[in-house]
Amino acid sequence: MTDAAADPLPLADPLPLAQALIRCPSVTPADEGALDVLQRALEALGFSCRRMPFSAAGTPDVDNLFAVLGEGAPHFCFAGHTDVVPVGDSAAWSRDPFGAEVADGILHGRGAVDMKSAIACFVTAVARLQAAGGPLPGRISLLITGDEEGPAINGTVRMLEQLAAEGLVPDACLVGEPTNPAVLGDMVKIGRRGSMNGVLTAAGTQGHVGYPHLADNPLPRLCRMLLAIAEPELDAGTAHFQKSNLEITSIDVGNPASNVIPAAGTARFNIRFNTEWTPDSLEAWLRARLDEAGGAYELAVTCGAEPFLTAPGDFTAMIVDAVADATGRRPELSTTGGTSDARFISRYCPVAEFGLIGQTMHKVDEQVPVAALHDLTEIYAGLLRRFLGLPGGISAGTAG
Amino acid sequence: MTDAAADPLPLADPLPLAQALIRCPSVTPADEGALDVLQRALEALGFSCRRMPFSAAGTPDVDNLFAVLGEGAPHFCFAGHTDVVPVGDSAAWSRDPFGAEVADGILHGRGAVDMKSAIACFVTAVARLQAAGGPLPGRISLLITGDEEGPAINGTVRMLEQLAAEGLVPDACLVGEPTNPAVLGDMVKIGRRGSMNGVLTAAGTQGHVGYPHLADNPLPRLCRMLLAIAEPELDAGTAHFQKSNLEITSIDVGNPASNVIPAAGTARFNIRFNTEWTPDSLEAWLRARLDEAGGAYELAVTCGAEPFLTAPGDFTAMIVDAVADATGRRPELSTTGGTSDARFISRYCPVAEFGLIGQTMHKVDEQVPVAALHDLTEIYAGLLRRFLGLPGGISAGTAG
Ligand SMILES: [Zn+2]
Ligand SMILES: [Zn+2]
Repeated sequence: MTDAAADPLPLADPLPLAQALIRCPSVTPADEGALDVLQRALEALGFSCRRMPFSAAGTPDVDNLFAVLGEGAPHFCFAGHTDVVPVGDSAAWSRDPFGAEVADGILHGRGAVDMKSAIACFVTAVARLQAAGGPLPGRISLLITGDEEGPAINGTVRMLEQLAAEGLVPDACLVGEPTNPAVLGDMVKIGRRGSMNGVLTAAGTQGHVGYPHLADNPLPRLCRMLLAIAEPELDAGTAHFQKSNLEITSIDVGNPASNVIPAAGTARFNIRFNTEWTPDSLEAWLRARLDEAGGAYELAVTCGAEPFLTAPGDFTAMIVDAVADATGRRPELSTTGGTSDARFISRYCPVAEFGLIGQTMHKVDEQVPVAALHDLTEIYAGLLRRFLGLPGGISAGTAG
Repeated sequence: MTDAAADPLPLADPLPLAQALIRCPSVTPADEGALDVLQRALEALGFSCRRMPFSAAGTPDVDNLFAVLGEGAPHFCFAGHTDVVPVGDSAAWSRDPFGAEVADGILHGRGAVDMKSAIACFVTAVARLQAAGGPLPGRISLLITGDEEGPAINGTVRMLEQLAAEGLVPDACLVGEPTNPAVLGDMVKIGRRGSMNGVLTAAGTQGHVGYPHLADNPLPRLCRMLLAIAEPELDAGTAHFQKSNLEITSIDVGNPASNVIPAAGTARFNIRFNTEWTPDSLEAWLRARLDEAGGAYELAVTCGAEPFLTAPGDFTAMIVDAVADATGRRPELSTTGGTSDARFISRYCPVAEFGLIGQTMHKVDEQVPVAALHDLTEIYAGLLRRFLGLPGGISAGTAG
């Protein structure tokens, strides 16, 4: 799918690059030429590009791309991913998911919002700065992984480890995930809650329902323990985070015999938690509540993501201002929703997320208005100018 | 397996008939000649025998035997079954499960306690009365099904319907199920609790754990509803019954996704209930508790057995006295344990249960001391004498 991208793309417009990327069916962990398309566009702008392939036992090999333009400080990084989630029910799509068709001003295809179009806007924003002329007062980089929708093991995490070892950690990073619930300009994400999974098993003694005194039914105890951890409020939320929340996701016993008291029952739960907690303090809270509920249990927890927050300040103000300039909206600073690679980047530098409108992400008929790509380019260019200290107008074109 | 039974059996001793019955591998619903063996023995004593085969869609055809000796009132009935449960792990048996071997005074085999030996004792007890001479002041019948360990649809229930239509309902009935926990003479069963199965489903709205406000997790509600029905005492028991009891037997959601709030969860439970309840009053109690716990649910209940009680009185006193005469023990009148066909008979006449020692029933190496067969014969003969108003001594041999 790289033939169309072999000719130079007109980089003043984000649409052709977005289309070229969508036409590579890079369903995670496949790449299908997507990074090649992007690398050619970046090299045309003068970026120096390096591939950073990683592999790990039990996970697919993944290729990644790190591209840098300019030297010295400040160093601003755009982060994103070229992999996409599967098409799902392909018969349910109105258009070819990898056709990148435009109809009535709408771009259709898997990755149109999450997040190939945003990557195209990264590139176009840089091209727009360059069109204004003048030297680049610092560095712009793109940190692009092919492993965000997959296990996320051979992507952003390992790229950052390597870059940190080489002294290449940026001063700030914007991730181009779709953050707007309904309208471009709604929401900037400045943090994400952490995520912990738990498996709780209550064991008893199997027996016949006619002789309960000879058995010990673990299921009432399991119910009590589950309510002991699911009913209390974990916290009241913080200035920037909603309340932490625990959801029981499954309870499974699998006893087919209506006259048998089962020996054990197992429940699974997930906690989305804010910065009031660490994984350790959360596990300690769980065990205290379970101990209080009484009875023998086994608990295993795994922390899938720790919470992070980029406190509102100069960096987030630059993003808000850039959005307001381009759209007339002052976006909310939010920490809601799922997780993204921003949680890994937050260990190294201030990070926030702003991209397209999330409504159709991961769904059939993923789509984005072409006009939104132009607005997003303008927002990214405005952010770059602010961060790099360039004067307001594109046409100013002088170093700050 | 009927060859051995083709010769007349010496009916003064229960052992040969018990062995002949055990040697018919009548694993439910198979008969394998067991009813033929029994019928020949009964006909030798003068019983008139009729087969009562029944069939119903979705269940195996089953043959049954009703045998009557004498005329008029009172009419005493012995009830039992010739079918047995499967052998299970046949390699784990020390002896041939259908060999009916006697070693060191112990009779081995499937059905040795549940309940072919007791049927042999029914027959020997009648033979012992006849040996004493004199007319029979009333009727003795045997109601023997081949469908007690199976679905219990084509056996006792339908036999009784037919006999009732013909005016042949007995005045009292003793079921020969193994009722003694440890020693012959421990326990007479004068009732059984009822059994109800329930399936409770709580439904909600599926969603992502990161957006719980867009979902409705049914699992905390399911836990609360289960505790609302499992934690309260159903009743305080009665003079003759232990407390009714509810056991949660399974909870199943089957949600493999740790980031998904499930749409529904289902729990199963069983209630063993005493005569304080009817199936209707029990279901009403359940629904009231569930409504109080709050939230939408679906409940389906099926009543597998209604409770019954033969209140202690003349009939139960006769059984206790007969046991005490033969063993020196005054058995406890109990309503504990599972269900038996006595629940069906209780709809027509007073019924109690007394048989062998239950320890090895339904297990590998089912076995019974041969001496217990002689004691049980003596007990059954003593009960017949009391019920029919015959004088105490066997040798008395005159009508009461
Ligand atoms: Zn994404
Ligand atoms: Zn039985």
